[in-house]
Amino acid sequence: MGKTLAYKILENHLVEGTLSPGNEITIKIDQTLTQDSTGTMVYLQLEAMDVEEIKTELSVAYIDHNTLQTGFENADDHEFIKSVAKRHGVLFSKPGNGICHQLQLENFGIPGKTLLGSDSHTPTGGGLGMIAIGAGGLDVAVAMAKGTYSLTVPKVLKVELTGSLKPWVSAKDVILYVLKELTVKGGVGKIVEYTGDGVKTLSVTDRATITNMGAELGATTSLFPSDENTRKYLAAQGREKDYIPMSADPNAVYDEVLKVDLSSLVPLAAMPHSPDNVDTIKNIGTIKIDQVAIGSCTNSSYSDLMKVAEILKGKKVSPDVSLVISPGSSKILSKLAQNGALAAMIDAGARIIENACGPCIGMGQSPKSGAVSLRTFNRNFKGRSGTLDADVYLVSPETAAVSAVMGVLTDGSESGVHLPEITEENFAYNDNFIVYPKDTNKGNTKVEMGPNIKPFPQNTNLPDTVSGEVVLHAGNNITTDDIMPSDSRLLPYRSNIPYLANYCFEKIDAEFAARCKEADGGIIVGGENYGQGSSREHAALAPLYLGIKFVLAKSFARIHRSNLINSGILPLVFKNPGDYDTFTLGDKLMIKNAREQVKNPEIIIQNVTTGKEYIALTNFSELEIEMILAGGKINQIKG
Amino acid sequence: MGKTLAYKILENHLVEGTLSPGNEITIKIDQTLTQDSTGTMVYLQLEAMDVEEIKTELSVAYIDHNTLQTGFENADDHEFIKSVAKRHGVLFSKPGNGICHQLQLENFGIPGKTLLGSDSHTPTGGGLGMIAIGAGGLDVAVAMAKGTYSLTVPKVLKVELTGSLKPWVSAKDVILYVLKELTVKGGVGKIVEYTGDGVKTLSVTDRATITNMGAELGATTSLFPSDENTRKYLAAQGREKDYIPMSADPNAVYDEVLKVDLSSLVPLAAMPHSPDNVDTIKNIGTIKIDQVAIGSCTNSSYSDLMKVAEILKGKKVSPDVSLVISPGSSKILSKLAQNGALAAMIDAGARIIENACGPCIGMGQSPKSGAVSLRTFNRNFKGRSGTLDADVYLVSPETAAVSAVMGVLTDGSESGVHLPEITEENFAYNDNFIVYPKDTNKGNTKVEMGPNIKPFPQNTNLPDTVSGEVVLHAGNNITTDDIMPSDSRLLPYRSNIPYLANYCFEKIDAEFAARCKEADGGIIVGGENYGQGSSREHAALAPLYLGIKFVLAKSFARIHRSNLINSGILPLVFKNPGDYDTFTLGDKLMIKNAREQVKNPEIIIQNVTTGKEYIALTNFSELEIEMILAGGKINQIKG
Repeated sequence: MGKTLAYKILENHLVEGTLSPGNEITIKIDQTLTQDSTGTMVYLQLEAMDVEEIKTELSVAYIDHNTLQTGFENADDHEFIKSVAKRHGVLFSKPGNGICHQLQLENFGIPGKTLLGSDSHTPTGGGLGMIAIGAGGLDVAVAMAKGTYSLTVPKVLKVELTGSLKPWVSAKDVILYVLKELTVKGGVGKIVEYTGDGVKTLSVTDRATITNMGAELGATTSLFPSDENTRKYLAAQGREKDYIPMSADPNAVYDEVLKVDLSSLVPLAAMPHSPDNVDTIKNIGTIKIDQVAIGSCTNSSYSDLMKVAEILKGKKVSPDVSLVISPGSSKILSKLAQNGALAAMIDAGARIIENACGPCIGMGQSPKSGAVSLRTFNRNFKGRSGTLDADVYLVSPETAAVSAVMGVLTDGSESGVHLPEITEENFAYNDNFIVYPKDTNKGNTKVEMGPNIKPFPQNTNLPDTVSGEVVLHAGNNITTDDIMPSDSRLLPYRSNIPYLANYCFEKIDAEFAARCKEADGGIIVGGENYGQGSSREHAALAPLYLGIKFVLAKSFARIHRSNLINSGILPLVFKNPGDYDTFTLGDKLMIKNAREQVKNPEIIIQNVTTGKEYIALTNFSELEIEMILAGGKINQIKG
Repeated sequence: MGKTLAYKILENHLVEGTLSPGNEITIKIDQTLTQDSTGTMVYLQLEAMDVEEIKTELSVAYIDHNTLQTGFENADDHEFIKSVAKRHGVLFSKPGNGICHQLQLENFGIPGKTLLGSDSHTPTGGGLGMIAIGAGGLDVAVAMAKGTYSLTVPKVLKVELTGSLKPWVSAKDVILYVLKELTVKGGVGKIVEYTGDGVKTLSVTDRATITNMGAELGATTSLFPSDENTRKYLAAQGREKDYIPMSADPNAVYDEVLKVDLSSLVPLAAMPHSPDNVDTIKNIGTIKIDQVAIGSCTNSSYSDLMKVAEILKGKKVSPDVSLVISPGSSKILSKLAQNGALAAMIDAGARIIENACGPCIGMGQSPKSGAVSLRTFNRNFKGRSGTLDADVYLVSPETAAVSAVMGVLTDGSESGVHLPEITEENFAYNDNFIVYPKDTNKGNTKVEMGPNIKPFPQNTNLPDTVSGEVVLHAGNNITTDDIMPSDSRLLPYRSNIPYLANYCFEKIDAEFAARCKEADGGIIVGGENYGQGSSREHAALAPLYLGIKFVLAKSFARIHRSNLINSGILPLVFKNPGDYDTFTLGDKLMIKNAREQVKNPEIIIQNVTTGKEYIALTNFSELEIEMILAGGKINQIKG
């Protein structure tokens, strides 16, 4: 039976387990990347694991998210990451170098390698034929510490491409079409593998646009084969030596198939407020637009921006449109500044902002109230632009540029504007934004911790007697947003768990943090579906900091349960849900012989205040018991 | 007796009064400019005056301050200004075009003309031989409405320049030297006029750097003669037709004289935390630096940035330095993007951010905690960078660039780096960032008021009986910061007096706003020096919005007293300061026959609650009485 390219790469990296859909496997991770908004926590965790040397072939710490620096916190985070990167042998990419995924593609991506990144758009690397997966921060920290990553083997969905794109139709339209067909849930538990004759008509950066936005399918990752176009791209980056041809076996068997005739595609847009709410621009009509934003890890490649420049050349941005362009990398910006393309953009009336994620993550360039904003980005969720009532449409760079000139949403193929072919350029090697870890003796490098960066909270080995008072009696469907709010007020404090902890459960019970401090920690009693919503680790870390020993609830959301165990906080489930009502705030609870009891499927809890006794279910796996006894994943790894 | 250039221009524009130091005169204003952080209020005021047509030759509304757009408020302000500019015949400069003063110099400045701007660095225009004055927003609104501006005639201080600057010494060092000699108070009540043989060795943009930062002397304005270099500059901008040679009479008599031998100057820096805390870089020593920021209205001209590019070319920014460059205008950025200079900066590792005020006004690029930041800007007040414990040094672009490479504060003349001569470029005409008021029929243009922009609060004619209860009994030395706080939390609300008003007196009495709303306005009783500090109009507008009828205090700070009168709020002074102690919160006060009484030097106030009677002093001028009767300056102008 022929193999898919995805499974070939996974097989090459298999450390443990059987490569079959649904199985748990552990794979070797060759490369990791972090960005700064998740990165501070990753490196705090890496520090907490006290590893001597990272185990990956290459790890890079990028700064691309928090680059506005409206207070000292951002710059302090950058400095912290720089210092800790140096200490652990991690390359540091200075702010101004560009967006992590674009830079990783340009400078470090290698076909057939594995990449784990603490950013959901890490699959960009799939454009080069890598298995590139986005993961939580602690997973990336562990990948650096141990060189491995565990995952459930995904199915492989083949997208078979035939034909070639017409002018004014581009890679963005391909992924928008796939999103329309598969929806934002269509990729869950799957790797999306692109094959077929149409592949060779797409450049590596076209492919990267497609695999990047595969994140919006919910896919584990997406990838393309490595072929002659891959060789050309690597050669243009001065890295032809990294080229390895790789593809699926001709008779590879896939779990699912989607066929896409590139020739039949037309310019598309994802309408508010979901990336899969896709229609043709013709159908949507010539709506008036207020803002156009070009850039992001999805669409900021050299050829994307050259097309934009060619469209804008000698024209004028509509007086009613604010056109803002953020190039993907310093190399691209420099090249555009050498060949006249940047001047053409500026002369037409485009705003040039720093090479960074910027407006794509709502960091700046929020449009006016009720605006229609055309963006070449990857997500158009309500409010993501920073303007709650704005309507964001996701489009290709070509569509964005021609629409900026016309002042209305425009199908370029009907605009009469000529769109020339773009020739890929060769890029000179330049690492002036890279800081290398010169010093391999980590003892010599001081970690720079600004006043907003606080050490990662660490649990201790599980004591034999676990006790505390009930500090919260929460209802059903508590979300991680309830547990640890995340908004523009709190985002600069992602490196400061002690500060964030003050806002823990703020919306549910404003006294929660104070009560925990008064009682020296305690126990949370919860209802059904405790910890649903976003996967953020901070919803376990803040309770850990506040001294929460265990959470006793009717049921737990899957990811938050893992995060609690990772932090050494026991998630315990009422055997009799009716017991939930018998607790009162301030009741003192106790688990005796805890280190023995956690190994059992059931555990006895005493309410010292009322004298009652309760039974809770554990359902811990072997690995989970290890982590709980050690006081969390980091302690377990430290051993 | 020969005339100074300053008095020649004032004389040419004299509408009323006698041109003699200390006299009040009214002059014709040819041009106005606004920026967006003061501009929204200016145009709300202009709207409130209900003028049919602006009276200036040219008025321009720039967007350069609030360009980060971290929420919808900034973009809404831009849109409001654009719509109201169109309505009143004001040119609108889109965000991305650059910094108001640089753009005004490039595109509109004319020797011998007068310019009034709602920004303290408006004297930049003095580099072209203009009388260019920074003023409060309402003054600029009135200048647009009436075409005039009233001021006390300043003395004229001659700075006589001889010799010429050595390599690595530039215009920034000249003004730093003048600041060292005269201090930040040295220019108060004066116009600084540059003369002498040394003038011809300085380009217009050199001169503009000097007159720009004359604001830091406290001067009314600074200016240079218009000569052959002026002609060249205007020709390079495609505006040779605007050239008029102008200079002081050879035998002009000045009130004061400072002589500066340009040949003797060396690279200087203003040390923390004042622009006049100046020493030579040699004396300061090679301190380690963390950030270098190049740009601002002081130092972002084409030749400034070309020098920076030449210094950075082929070199690498120190790994420990974050170098950030914000060019002054779209024309300059475009030119740098055409001639390779921008590429040289990027390749060396410089971050390029948008053409705007940016870090100079603390909008982004705040350095890390405790950082040493070298900046080519004009102010290094504590905390202005956004990082309270950062040490900011003000330097020339040459010094900034060479120091960024070395990683330490460096005197370029001792660095061994070659500094080539920069040739001024010709700039193609490009107005793609300018929106013209096509429509002269103002009825046809809708004013776009986003939800954060609220109408300007307007007072009514003074009633015959003025009454209200005491809503605040404040102490001595109340500042305008106490009255109306201004911080990053409140800055996006500068167009929203109703919202800001909720924070009025927040630090003194958190219940103040609520109490005013409950009592339907009221009266403030204050101590000595009420309203000291910043000149912000919002400290009168918020009380106006809250219904404050009069302030009865022991004494008033001059500017705040004017702002109160401009708003139609009576500033009344205790005849017997001891009366201050006899008031209680909630006392009902009343002025009978107020419209007659305000014309008298003394006024009788009754305390209805206690039955006591008080005498207060008015000291209103004729014009002030007119404004008070009308309910403020705007009502008085509307007539």
